[in-house]
Amino acid sequence: MLELVVQTERRTQLVDLTERVRDAVAGTDAGALTLFVPHATAGILLQASGPGARHVAADLEAALDGLVGESANWRHLEEGDRNPWAHVRAALTASSVTVPIDGGELPLGEHQTIFLCEFDGPRSRRLLLALHR
Amino acid sequence: MLELVVQTERRTQLVDLTERVRDAVAGTDAGALTLFVPHATAGILLQASGPGARHVAADLEAALDGLVGESANWRHLEEGDRNPWAHVRAALTASSVTVPIDGGELPLGEHQTIFLCEFDGPRSRRLLLALHR
Amino acid sequence: MLELVVQTERRTQLVDLTERVRDAVAGTDAGALTLFVPHATAGILLQASGPGARHVAADLEAALDGLVGESANWRHLEEGDRNPWAHVRAALTASSVTVPIDGGELPLGEHQTIFLCEFDGPRSRRLLLALHR
Repeated sequence: MLELVVQTERRTQLVDLTERVRDAVAGTDAGALTLFVPHATAGILLQASGPGARHVAADLEAALDGLVGESANWRHLEEGDRNPWAHVRAALTASSVTVPIDGGELPLGEHQTIFLCEFDGPRSRRLLLALHR
Repeated sequence: MLELVVQTERRTQLVDLTERVRDAVAGTDAGALTLFVPHATAGILLQASGPGARHVAADLEAALDGLVGESANWRHLEEGDRNPWAHVRAALTASSVTVPIDGGELPLGEHQTIFLCEFDGPRSRRLLLALHR
Repeated sequence: MLELVVQTERRTQLVDLTERVRDAVAGTDAGALTLFVPHATAGILLQASGPGARHVAADLEAALDGLVGESANWRHLEEGDRNPWAHVRAALTASSVTVPIDGGELPLGEHQTIFLCEFDGPRSRRLLLALHR
């Protein structure tokens, strides 16, 4: 099983892993790739970046933080856990995404970008890759 | 790799593709099907339609629009992009869903419906289908 | 195709199915597992439980209920359906999650837990399991 390791730098941060994922599957004859995040305060989103979409990651970070605020009446806080809202934010993203592979390539859309989504950083995070026939 | 093309008609619109997907996989001996949306302002949801659930799609369109309003302080707008909230709305849906196949059939629930979710229409959209063993 | 049946007990409830899923795939030589929920008012989330995360499920239940309130102007209610918001809450979770299998084991994170998410209980619910090569 392939694995990518990422060091995040901010509490909420979308990290672009598209090139590392493309490199990891280049030339495979598999038919699909599953990306899996083995964490409960991180997730995965396929969203946009690049020309015409430079601020999408920042907008997503702010929007997900805003949807799940820190002033709610969290039960998890009673245990002294420092960041219960991170679990809810992560729950709004995905734990896995499966992408078809076509001739050894990922058929991503024009600006489509693979983001690991950190909600309790900075931390070391893992992204597991599984190829399917 | 199979592909369905859809022309959406409204800015936010859930389009029922269940029959087209069923037709595309009818009789296959594969064990699962991945549906993948190669877009960053569209997504996929398996939700309900039909008798007793006629307005679920309209309720989902209104609810997702309402959760991610257009008056926030979007950074993406500074670039002149016309619809940054579409990215966040799409992020709340899925980029991929994998459905088991049982005897050549998709074991969907009684009212379960495959919706392509448009958040920046009208546009031409693609849904990619990958079969797995 | 493997199938787990769950009886939920509350209207909104996250039910931990991790051990039942682990038991169902123990020793397989498959490369990945897809979990699929054939319902439109239930879903799946991989989130946290256990020491240091005892209240995460309760926080998620409250947060998802809070994000999608019951006082909105629902069209689905016009048909007499009793719980339209359940569809939107379920849409914020996943219909499927695909988990790599490594040496017959699911490589879940330390506290990572497989939850079936009920939003219109109590009901009998099904979770379908498909193994991939």
